[in-house]
Amino acid sequence: MTRTIFCNGKFVPESEAVVSVLDRGFLFADAVYEVTSVLEGKLIDFNRHMARLRRSLAEIELTFPVSDEQLLDIHRELLKRNEVRQGLVYLQVSRGVAERDFVMSNVEPTLVVFTQKKDLLGNSKNASGYRIVTVPDLRWGRRDIKTVQLLYPSMAKMIAVKAGADDAWLVEDGFVTEGSSNNAYIVEQSGDIVTRNLSNSILAGITRQAVLEYAKEAGIKIVERPFTVAEAKNAAEAFATAASLFVVPVVEIDGDPIGNGKPGPVAQRLRDLYLEECRKRAF
Amino acid sequence: MTRTIFCNGKFVPESEAVVSVLDRGFLFADAVYEVTSVLEGKLIDFNRHMARLRRSLAEIELTFPVSDEQLLDIHRELLKRNEVRQGLVYLQVSRGVAERDFVMSNVEPTLVVFTQKKDLLGNSKNASGYRIVTVPDLRWGRRDIKTVQLLYPSMAKMIAVKAGADDAWLVEDGFVTEGSSNNAYIVEQSGDIVTRNLSNSILAGITRQAVLEYAKEAGIKIVERPFTVAEAKNAAEAFATAASLFVVPVVEIDGDPIGNGKPGPVAQRLRDLYLEECRKRAF
Repeated sequence: MTRTIFCNGKFVPESEAVVSVLDRGFLFADAVYEVTSVLEGKLIDFNRHMARLRRSLAEIELTFPVSDEQLLDIHRELLKRNEVRQGLVYLQVSRGVAERDFVMSNVEPTLVVFTQKKDLLGNSKNASGYRIVTVPDLRWGRRDIKTVQLLYPSMAKMIAVKAGADDAWLVEDGFVTEGSSNNAYIVEQSGDIVTRNLSNSILAGITRQAVLEYAKEAGIKIVERPFTVAEAKNAAEAFATAASLFVVPVVEIDGDPIGNGKPGPVAQRLRDLYLEECRKRAF
Repeated sequence: MTRTIFCNGKFVPESEAVVSVLDRGFLFADAVYEVTSVLEGKLIDFNRHMARLRRSLAEIELTFPVSDEQLLDIHRELLKRNEVRQGLVYLQVSRGVAERDFVMSNVEPTLVVFTQKKDLLGNSKNASGYRIVTVPDLRWGRRDIKTVQLLYPSMAKMIAVKAGADDAWLVEDGFVTEGSSNNAYIVEQSGDIVTRNLSNSILAGITRQAVLEYAKEAGIKIVERPFTVAEAKNAAEAFATAASLFVVPVVEIDGDPIGNGKPGPVAQRLRDLYLEECRKRAF
């Protein structure tokens, strides 16, 4: 079965899902995106993803006329056509096609939406835990905007893979900002969860938002502040969150085991909590 | 006449110059580029642009099998087919089409080359001079690699345009790094030229390289070091260089006139020198 992709206003076979080489998404990385996970054929945290999309669009002053309702219809139609019960829906809005110039033209935005079938729940790293390497955070200064300027996160991921690890945590001025494409957390010996506070330095993760909310409701104490690599290495546990990962334990940083080097109970509890709650709210 | 573009190994009409939405240039800004200027139908500094392209490719570990000779043939064929006597040739290499993943796949790179007809020599700003605004430099940490992660330079350009200026100079830790898409210079009261030294903080401009070479040959003293906005405002002159601008005088920074607020003789001399020398070496 060939995948159907939504591109330039139409549902087309993957081979016809193309954009002009003059699209500003291709020439200037002038585009923002969202990735929504799918469980049992339902969208997880869809409204929150769309709210963040609107914020990203506003921050780069990109006027986008398609409503959340229309986007929901496109998501659902793609899930149906591609028979996706579990996986991801990727959505990208770029400024559109214009003669190449650093001055932005007021043109029609390009909307691309496609699905990826994935066994998100069966990710073997849930059981074994992520092994992390740390790398300097060389990204631009507005990481709160979810743009497609993803070359460095991709390079960081490759550094991890080449080192035999699963992912990279990015470090700036001695403090962990976040993972290559996920938010980073430690669990202190006291049981408190520490994760970096929101700012221009990190992306406001949708899964982060939900996990913190559910954790607070469950009476777990959350401290939002930057933490160092040394703190992480001495923590009781560590973990990461992302739409495609939910909650995944981190068991090693730069070769040093976290805690006893095995997935910890707090990460497991939060994962269970998140999966239970997000499914209740999925649609 | 419809423009002919080189895309995916073929010369095609502009309307057919498309790339897959799964191209990593579109999804991850995983692509590098070069822009070569054209005068009297000949390519300016072509070999230097290709040398920098090779360096950019190496830095992001992108294996690209097309030779400089083949690229030269493509450039010349496009100039001929599009009847370009003056303007620009834009070249972009992206990592290619792969299922979306932060882990880079070893796929076939995408090569796109297109021309833009432009009256480069007749740019009215040569006579009137550029008016500059300064903005914080929020770009990533590897500006020495010429990637398509150009959203911030484009945003900076828009800040300038909205302020009624021509371009933005980017400032980091109090020092000017470079312009939105050009290198920045001041001429001290002594007549010495100051421009920022090469590092990861700026792009090693091809026009910069050539201008400095020709200036040194002409006995003009060059000092390569960072300079502050205050120094620039108190300078005798200021100017910028880029492949599309050659040498353009800067007459105002953040509303303050540089020198007497008119294009200065050193910038003019360097422009004449550059245009004379680059034409001699064009092919």
